[in-house]
Amino acid sequence: MKLGKRLAVEGAGTAWLVFAGCAATALSASLPAQGCNMLEMAVAFGFALTVANYAADRAASAHFNPAVTIGYAVSRRFPVRDVGPYIVAQTLGAILGAALLVRVASGRPGFSVAVSDFGSNGYDDHSPTEYAVSAVFMLELAMSFAFVYVHLLMSSTAARRKAAPLAVGACLAAIYLIAIPVSNGGANPARSTGPALFVGEWALDQLWLFWAAPILGGAAAGIVYRLVSRQHSQALSAQLRDGI
Amino acid sequence: MKLGKRLAVEGAGTAWLVFAGCAATALSASLPAQGCNMLEMAVAFGFALTVANYAADRAASAHFNPAVTIGYAVSRRFPVRDVGPYIVAQTLGAILGAALLVRVASGRPGFSVAVSDFGSNGYDDHSPTEYAVSAVFMLELAMSFAFVYVHLLMSSTAARRKAAPLAVGACLAAIYLIAIPVSNGGANPARSTGPALFVGEWALDQLWLFWAAPILGGAAAGIVYRLVSRQHSQALSAQLRDGI
Amino acid sequence: MKLGKRLAVEGAGTAWLVFAGCAATALSASLPAQGCNMLEMAVAFGFALTVANYAADRAASAHFNPAVTIGYAVSRRFPVRDVGPYIVAQTLGAILGAALLVRVASGRPGFSVAVSDFGSNGYDDHSPTEYAVSAVFMLELAMSFAFVYVHLLMSSTAARRKAAPLAVGACLAAIYLIAIPVSNGGANPARSTGPALFVGEWALDQLWLFWAAPILGGAAAGIVYRLVSRQHSQALSAQLRDGI
Amino acid sequence: MKLGKRLAVEGAGTAWLVFAGCAATALSASLPAQGCNMLEMAVAFGFALTVANYAADRAASAHFNPAVTIGYAVSRRFPVRDVGPYIVAQTLGAILGAALLVRVASGRPGFSVAVSDFGSNGYDDHSPTEYAVSAVFMLELAMSFAFVYVHLLMSSTAARRKAAPLAVGACLAAIYLIAIPVSNGGANPARSTGPALFVGEWALDQLWLFWAAPILGGAAAGIVYRLVSRQHSQALSAQLRDGI
Repeated sequence: MKLGKRLAVEGAGTAWLVFAGCAATALSASLPAQGCNMLEMAVAFGFALTVANYAADRAASAHFNPAVTIGYAVSRRFPVRDVGPYIVAQTLGAILGAALLVRVASGRPGFSVAVSDFGSNGYDDHSPTEYAVSAVFMLELAMSFAFVYVHLLMSSTAARRKAAPLAVGACLAAIYLIAIPVSNGGANPARSTGPALFVGEWALDQLWLFWAAPILGGAAAGIVYRLVSRQHSQALSAQLRDGI
Repeated sequence: MKLGKRLAVEGAGTAWLVFAGCAATALSASLPAQGCNMLEMAVAFGFALTVANYAADRAASAHFNPAVTIGYAVSRRFPVRDVGPYIVAQTLGAILGAALLVRVASGRPGFSVAVSDFGSNGYDDHSPTEYAVSAVFMLELAMSFAFVYVHLLMSSTAARRKAAPLAVGACLAAIYLIAIPVSNGGANPARSTGPALFVGEWALDQLWLFWAAPILGGAAAGIVYRLVSRQHSQALSAQLRDGI
Repeated sequence: MKLGKRLAVEGAGTAWLVFAGCAATALSASLPAQGCNMLEMAVAFGFALTVANYAADRAASAHFNPAVTIGYAVSRRFPVRDVGPYIVAQTLGAILGAALLVRVASGRPGFSVAVSDFGSNGYDDHSPTEYAVSAVFMLELAMSFAFVYVHLLMSSTAARRKAAPLAVGACLAAIYLIAIPVSNGGANPARSTGPALFVGEWALDQLWLFWAAPILGGAAAGIVYRLVSRQHSQALSAQLRDGI
Repeated sequence: MKLGKRLAVEGAGTAWLVFAGCAATALSASLPAQGCNMLEMAVAFGFALTVANYAADRAASAHFNPAVTIGYAVSRRFPVRDVGPYIVAQTLGAILGAALLVRVASGRPGFSVAVSDFGSNGYDDHSPTEYAVSAVFMLELAMSFAFVYVHLLMSSTAARRKAAPLAVGACLAAIYLIAIPVSNGGANPARSTGPALFVGEWALDQLWLFWAAPILGGAAAGIVYRLVSRQHSQALSAQLRDGI
């Protein structure tokens, strides 16, 4: 596929992911805080990603996430020159998704994006259960590592690509069940940027963490993936050479 | 398959979808409002659609939704002359499903369909969280666009049709997690009509929106799908012509 | 497979289904009534059936439910002479599952099976939300029809049998989301019999309905399935004869 | 695959499983007890196992659980000499996952691992709903039997291995929906050991049960599996010999 079309897919998919995932929280904010919100939001993100992966032309090669794009580039399975355009498209898509969400949410009397936290990510006072910055950083890094590593594995053969949309969606739901009470669920810099632009102030101040930690985690996943698969190829070559 | 049988499948599937989806709310209405209702209703609609798509003879070619039928016709993948019969069959099916639901629900002492909102869709005072008409219109249009576009994509090749029931069901669950607090979850004119006929008054007054917005969204999805796939074919032809 | 082994599969699968499905309610009964119970119980039954169908040797040909067995026999896809042994094996399995559940549940101080309703099915005063006998009968009949019809469809070709465990599990979860507030979720006479034997009194008095309605629904599904597929074959034959 | 790499997969997968599964409870512990916690935790474990099975190189041959490893060894489908290394790798992985979880959780002001039960397993006073030791033992044994038996079945042919990640994840979610109110959900000695080491005292005192019962259950599953498949092969041989 041409780069232009792939960028459109990235943008549209990320817009859908941010809109659908954050809506489960943002649009029902006037209801009292509910025990199911965490499950709803995690499931909404998971379903939305599964759907986007099924809908994208080649399942699981659509990233919708700068950390994933960087992980693929670091593992040498994605051209470095496309990283910039992909991240721009993803971020613009996320902003579009958040803008549409603000537009819909403002149709409720008394809505104020400054009051609602709108699904945006934060630490310290802005963590849902007041986790300190170091804990949030570590969790975002670890969850991004896990997510990007699973993403890389699930696209490594044709057989696995068939199951990729389910596996990647289940993985996102699992890491959001973990991360929502801590950081409101990030592991995707574009997804964090969309709502933060509309919430402003603290959300923008804290946005650096939700770029730095996922990108480090994604890059680490790419490095580990490359080391493991290189070792694997060398073992195969050695076996072939020795006639085993 | 003959038109008669396909119409029966459309009617039966839509009846099942409306009954199963709305029952999760309508039949438990005597319990106190619960944080899980949104998740239950979204999951019930998603499961019911997945099941109906698996059960229909050619997965994902059963529509169960006038917006989907119009999207397929606009994208030129469905004969225009069958649109009317399909929509009639879907609407009759939805009314049958809602009638069965009223019949069961009235077995509870003190039940009154006028009091219960019965899973019907509304805006302003009748939106679950009082969203204004413009926000509801925009959301219904956007969600119908997304749902019909995913539907069109998932039936475009034989390989994708295998995964279509899961993807389409997950997509419906995702858009209902978004839309339930806003409009009670529509994106399907037949599904909206069934309960509205029994709730009457305001539900009938507001029904126009739940036909207009989903049909516009579905038609827009059909147009975009056709433009994208035509561009794709032209690119392929050009490549073939240029011997690339 | 020999009848003996198939009966063992039926018994073991039904024991697992009753234990796993009813445990989600029975074992947590000391916690306050929770909004998620309905979703938990429906999901537990759905997961348990999906797992049992995957685990059974030929997916979706294991019934675990007398209504399903009767539906298959009526549609002439199951030998009539095996119906009796199957139903006995399913019912014994369900009793075993319920007995194991009583044994575990009685490990909680103050447990009394007479107080707990133990996931048993009922109408009127014993319906979770006091539905009258006629409404419960109608719902059980309709849900059993839908479930058995989906079961018959999903085992009709080799391709569909692959997806059957997911579709049948999702279908059971969907009908339980509907039926739990009405009847506590039946549509399976063996599953109803297991807990009823331990709850006694009212549960045994009301047990007739949870045999009669599901069996009528399952038989009706078998008749409709046979009529539709016969019509389908005749249409095919006519087309072949006319050289279309 | 070489043993070294397989041990790394076992360790990493078990770390992920413990971290993801227990986090759904441990990280949100400051929120009031919620009706959804059981569903969240069960779904988190199920998703995490499905993801780990998809990500492991040969789906469903990764165990992540000493009871599973022993079940495979007893059924003679896994070399006895690898049992020890596997169990060590799984246990170390679980401790790593729990350590990471403690590290993240301690980023919340006022966190104390001694107060929080941290997803650890217990009986009597330490069972979530005070189940006695005998009931917990019986449930853990029965659930481990069911889980390991399903695991053995789902890896028995190439066709079933494709569906194994979904079936095994759904099975874990189902047994956790059953077991969470009783024992907090075990059926995996490594998963029980990880949190217990950090909770200390009672959790270590009671840890014996969460090794003994799952291992007995897993071994029983291996024996039954072997008897059934041997009987099956003998029947096949007899049919071949008799020319049937």
